[in-house]
This record gives sequence, structure tokens and C-alpha cells, in this order.
Amino acid sequence: MNKKRGDKDEGLNQTTSSVSVFAPSGIITLLTDFGTTDYFVAAMKGVILSRNPHVNIVDITHDVPPHDIEAGAFVLLNAYDSFPSGTIHLSIVDPGVGSSRRPLLIVADKQFFVGPDNGLFNYICERSPGVSVVHLTNEEYFRKPVSPTFHGRDVFAPVAAELSTGTGPKVFGTLTTEYVKLPPLKPKASATGELTGRIIHIDRFGNCISNITKSQLNCSQIEGGAKLTINGKVVSSFKNFFADVSKSEEEVFAVWGSAGFLEIAAANKSAAKLLNAKRGDAVMVSL
Amino acid sequence: MNKKRGDKDEGLNQTTSSVSVFAPSGIITLLTDFGTTDYFVAAMKGVILSRNPHVNIVDITHDVPPHDIEAGAFVLLNAYDSFPSGTIHLSIVDPGVGSSRRPLLIVADKQFFVGPDNGLFNYICERSPGVSVVHLTNEEYFRKPVSPTFHGRDVFAPVAAELSTGTGPKVFGTLTTEYVKLPPLKPKASATGELTGRIIHIDRFGNCISNITKSQLNCSQIEGGAKLTINGKVVSSFKNFFADVSKSEEEVFAVWGSAGFLEIAAANKSAAKLLNAKRGDAVMVSL
Amino acid sequence: MNKKRGDKDEGLNQTTSSVSVFAPSGIITLLTDFGTTDYFVAAMKGVILSRNPHVNIVDITHDVPPHDIEAGAFVLLNAYDSFPSGTIHLSIVDPGVGSSRRPLLIVADKQFFVGPDNGLFNYICERSPGVSVVHLTNEEYFRKPVSPTFHGRDVFAPVAAELSTGTGPKVFGTLTTEYVKLPPLKPKASATGELTGRIIHIDRFGNCISNITKSQLNCSQIEGGAKLTINGKVVSSFKNFFADVSKSEEEVFAVWGSAGFLEIAAANKSAAKLLNAKRGDAVMVSL
Repeated sequence: MNKKRGDKDEGLNQTTSSVSVFAPSGIITLLTDFGTTDYFVAAMKGVILSRNPHVNIVDITHDVPPHDIEAGAFVLLNAYDSFPSGTIHLSIVDPGVGSSRRPLLIVADKQFFVGPDNGLFNYICERSPGVSVVHLTNEEYFRKPVSPTFHGRDVFAPVAAELSTGTGPKVFGTLTTEYVKLPPLKPKASATGELTGRIIHIDRFGNCISNITKSQLNCSQIEGGAKLTINGKVVSSFKNFFADVSKSEEEVFAVWGSAGFLEIAAANKSAAKLLNAKRGDAVMVSL
Repeated sequence: MNKKRGDKDEGLNQTTSSVSVFAPSGIITLLTDFGTTDYFVAAMKGVILSRNPHVNIVDITHDVPPHDIEAGAFVLLNAYDSFPSGTIHLSIVDPGVGSSRRPLLIVADKQFFVGPDNGLFNYICERSPGVSVVHLTNEEYFRKPVSPTFHGRDVFAPVAAELSTGTGPKVFGTLTTEYVKLPPLKPKASATGELTGRIIHIDRFGNCISNITKSQLNCSQIEGGAKLTINGKVVSSFKNFFADVSKSEEEVFAVWGSAGFLEIAAANKSAAKLLNAKRGDAVMVSL
Repeated sequence: MNKKRGDKDEGLNQTTSSVSVFAPSGIITLLTDFGTTDYFVAAMKGVILSRNPHVNIVDITHDVPPHDIEAGAFVLLNAYDSFPSGTIHLSIVDPGVGSSRRPLLIVADKQFFVGPDNGLFNYICERSPGVSVVHLTNEEYFRKPVSPTFHGRDVFAPVAAELSTGTGPKVFGTLTTEYVKLPPLKPKASATGELTGRIIHIDRFGNCISNITKSQLNCSQIEGGAKLTINGKVVSSFKNFFADVSKSEEEVFAVWGSAGFLEIAAANKSAAKLLNAKRGDAVMVSL
């Protein structure tokens, strides 16, 4: 579809001169590191509802550790695709607010992403076949005056609200092909098939989520005796689900998690504590 | 009402072969132990809104202590009946996810309850005159593939969403009369009228909520000098409300709480700290 | 506008015998110290939705420190004016619940405020040119029976819900001109222009927010070498935004925050920790 509709075009594909059409879903999600104690999140919601009273605002989380872009990127990666296409994901983990870091609108996987250019949307872009990026330069849609310390309220929220009314991405700024990348999510594979992954997240239950997916480690390799090592400890059992283990056992085990990643878990215990594991720790698989 | 409407019957009463009709309220509440840091809650909301964009999702809490079924059951008991009849309560505290524990839909007190069969809904069932239980066996309504570790997203959320569109309970599976019970909420009474209750919850303010209600301990017994003991300490004063005490007093006092239970509180202090009390501690009343 | 419309008048101005007309926005915000672990917030939402299923409930925060009226007043001050006029702000930090403290409905700055008479709305009233105050005495709108420990659910939530349907303020009680005041938000200025302010809030990032605004300290004074002192430490640099500083610097700096107050911050660090600062600490400005 090469149709252009003035300022009402909807969605941009990888070839940035053409346009994929899809309508907003009526939902704006929020993901921030603002916490829920201060006025920040409420101020953003007020701005959104002042501009579009009919939009449905859904919190993903506001408890991203302060300034932790990778943590925010991980949570967003695993939440966004449960939402209908055309959902707007307004995501603010923004240590560089007020500096020269650019404000962006990204269109990927039939969803919209609004936030700072610092890698927050990178895991999603890494997986999505077509990505379009708009540098938000059109100040007409900003809330005035723009506070140099709160672009969430004054830049990103009003753009997301306007986008949710059906205004197309291109009116908000200029197309660009550059955006900040994070270290790739994919683990390294050696010539002999050994995998070097890492812990990318530790959840509330203490499960250690690695970056290894089924496309890197298949069932027959596991059944053939693949050896998993984390922090010097060999994880020798693979389970189908968390409760699939005798409660008297203290041991950790591997399980395919709900986000599609290999997790190291323990029955009703924190695997992270048992292994003294933290994000970034290496996870090795030898076949 | 014995009317049957194919797969659009709504509500099942205690006599499981007949049907009470009431419409969904348009509200789905969520109660989980998932916390608000991870993607779990957002993924469930995305699944629900993908299937019913018009439903109103209300969080009860996501801060149930991990795997603590009794804590979840207590919060749900005290929240559910403020909602209009026909509200769907989607409640997931589910240490046995993926095992043989059954997924259930319970109809009680003109409300719907969707979640695991582990006692989470038991305090409500204990009080409700008519309870109907459907074992969720109809996989047609599940999200595919079903992750063995996240039935909240793949089993319970899509069933709740479908139910909110007006589809009747019976299409989701088979009627059953069995469900997991918790230790009863009601305190024990001796032949001489002595009550043995327990602390069932400690709230954010440090108030210790017992399982004693006005049906077990009436005003004239209190005025007649009923003696309340917790952790070896006698609580000798009964107050009408929290601020009804001199601020210089250090003492704890008893008060009827907003959930209908006898609470032990302290003026602007944590009674739990003053008493070194924890959930499960005995609360004795002698007359 | 002196029009009176029986029990459907909407909004009251400073001259309490006349009436400003504005319609409810369809939004009720919630701010409490109830936390998100207990059933309190959900019970209030259930009561509201039972009386007005169409209202949009937006959480400001439930993490006000228990009984901390000033903290609640600060968050509300900075959140409320992002919402459309006619929004109802239901705010409960209420250590005196059940005592003789009065339940109020305040109309200020084209918004409605419902909650206890203890200063929670005072910072907003301090700034608003016209304020009308209704003492909520009409029990007809309360939920029965009224629990002496949970007016949030039984008094304030049903009044807010009824107000959101378009019922005017005056039907809920009697007009009054008295309400509880907090210590004024405005800093003291000496004859020589020296300012004595205080830290009024410390946010999630450790930024120390003072009560000094641009009306007390202008740009030319800052450029002219105004000297800022907190806890014996001189803050000598003023920045435009948080990231506007070399990351190797350990120092704290001053910045105009998004709420319009002068903040003391540190680049990617907690200024509160570096300064060992807490709420109430003096902030001195000499010119």
C-alpha cells in the first residue's frame, strides 16, 4: 500500500517511503521507572485523558529500576505482543531527559512505541522484520512549556494521546533510520555448537531468565545430554513446569519460561538466591 | 429458573443441574501474587482486551506474598462484595501451575471467580449459600500454545474475557462438586463459650485482623468484661475507631474493622510490632 | 452566573452563595495511604463502579507514607492540574477517621476534591483564587452501615461517585468557610531578600524538592550569584536538566523541576543520600 493520506497516514514499514495502514487499538500502555509514589505517572495520565478522554490506559509497570534501560526493554519485549495491533506503548526510562538524546516514535510489529532514543525499544526492533522510526521534531503536539526534566508529561504523553486519535506517525516529525542499539539479545554460538548466553532478568519469584530460546537449543539436544552451567554450578535437570519436582529437593532446574526463554528455577524457592545469580551472569551450554 | 440457553446460560446455582441467570457487570478484577515489576500482569490485561476491548479491568492487588494462598483468599474475601453482581474475579496465586491442580470457574454470591483449585476462593464459598463449580476443560477458549508456567495468561485470562462477553459458565467445562478447602475461617468455641481464634491478616498499618466476627462475640459480652488475649498480652480496651484514644497511650486496643472482623490496633502505631504478632497467632476470648 | 438548579447545581465559587457551572469530566482520581497490598483500594473502586459504571478511575498513588498528610498534599498538588476541569479527586490520608474531623467536598480551580478535613487539599486551596467548601452531612449518599474505620469506602467513595453523575455539590451537605490549614508552602523572605525555604519532598530518584519557585528566585538573581545552602553544604551550580553535567562529577546541583519548584539533584545519583537530606530540612538562599 503506497497510499498517502496527508497527515492521517497510519503506520510506516521498513521502506520508509511507503506506508502500512493500521488503526490505533484505543489502548495506550505505560512503562516507566517513575515508581508509583510520586505524581509523575498521574500527570502523564491526566495529559493523555485531557487530549483523548476515550483512550484506555493500561499500566505495564512503573517499577523498572531507576535508569535501567535493559530491564525496561526486557519487560516491554514480553508484554507488548499480548496487546492488539495498533496499541501505543508509551515507555519512559530516560536518564538523558533534556539532553540531546532524541524523542522517537517507532512503528514495529504493527504496534507503536513512543519514548526516548536510548535502546528501550531495541529488543523489539531486533525481532521485528519491518521497523519505521520517526524523530519527534514537531513541537506543535507538545505540552507547553516543555519542562527540561519531564518529557514524559510534556513530549511523549501528548504525542501518544494524539496518535491514539488516529493521527498518522509522519506528522510528528522526520523519518530516520538511526536509533540507539543495546547489546544483542541473542546468545553467542561457537563453531562446535557451544552456547554462551547470559541472565537477562530475575523475576519476583527468583527465577533466572536467560537469553537462550528454543531456536538455539532444541529438545533433542537437551535429551541428548546438553550441559548447562551457571556460576560454576551445573544445572542437570530439565522440567516442564515449576511444580514438576519433589518439594524436598533443594536443587535448581531448567524450564522453558512463558516468555520463550530458558529459565533456571527452583521449586518454591528463589533460584537466584540458591545460585547467588545476578543479571549479566554467564549461562553456558555445552552439547 | 430452569431455562437453558445452549451455550449462553448465565450463572449456576448450588443445584448444579439448574441455572440462575445474571448478566456480567462488564468488570474483571485481578488479584495475583505476580507483583508489578514483571510483564505478567500486563500480558494478562493484553490478552483480555484483545478478546473484549470494552471490559473494565480493575486491579485488586498484585502484591499477595508469593505463593501465599491464604493471604490472597483473605484480600479477595474483603474486596469482592463491593463490586456489582456479575463481576468476574480473576485471581491467580498458583504455586501448582502446570501440575494436575485443576483450573476452575466458580459461581458464588452472584459473582464469578476464575482461577486455580487450591483454596483461593474458599473463604467466599464458605459463606455463600449456593456455589457452582466448573472444571475448565474446554481448551477451545485457551490461548495457544498454553505455557506450562503461565496459565494466568493462557488459560484463566481468555476464559474470563470470554465470560465477560456473556458466554455462560457451562460451556467452559464440566460441572463438579469438589474443590480444595482451606482451614475454616470460623473460630472454635468451647462449651463454656471461650473462643479460640487466630490472626488471619496484618495490614499496612500494622492492625492485626482476627477471624472473630460479631456473630461470635456480641456487644453485651464485650460490655460484660470479655477478656481478649494475644501472645500472652491482655487487650483490655475496646474502641469504636482508630483515633478514639489518647495519643499518649502506648496501648493496643480492639476495634471492629471495616471487613467485619475484630482487629487489634494501636493509635498511630503498628499493633503488630507492639505485640510482636504474626499471622496464625492465637487470639483467645474468655467471658 | 448566579443560576441555581435545585440539586443539580455544579461547582461553587468563593462567594459561597453563587455558583460556577462546570460539568464533571468523567474521571475520578484516587490518592491514598492505603498501599496496594490490602483490599481497601479495590473496595472503594467497587463502590464507585456500582454507582457509576461509566466513570474512569485513575490512580494517582496509594503509596503515601501512612498518615503523612503533607506528603499526600504535595503529590496531589502536582498531579491534579494535568487533569481536565471537572475531575473529581478522591483523596484519603485520614488518621482521624471516625473522630470528629469533618468529611469535605472542596471545589477549587475548576476541580472537585473529596476527603477528610485535615489539610490534604490545603496546598491547592492556597493557590486557587476561589474555593468553596461543603461539609458532607447528607447521609443519604453514604454506604450503610458506615464503618467507623473506613470512610473511604462508606462516605467518600459514594459521594464522589454520585458527584460524577452530575449531582451538584450543594446537595451533599452544608457550605462552610472553615477548613484545616497546613504550614504555608511559600518560603519566608527577609527584608534583605534572603529566602528561607525547606525540603518539601524527596522523590524516587533522590531529588530534593524545595518550596522555592520562580516567583521567589528569578534567573537574574541566579546568574548574579545567588548562594544556595542546604545542610551546611553550598550548592554552587545551577543546571537546566538532570543529564546536563559530566558523569564523573559527584556534586549536587540545582535545577528547576517539572512541578515548578527548585530541586537539588545529582547526576544519576541520589542527592538526598549525598546530602543526608530529609523532608523539612532548611534550604537557604542568600543573594
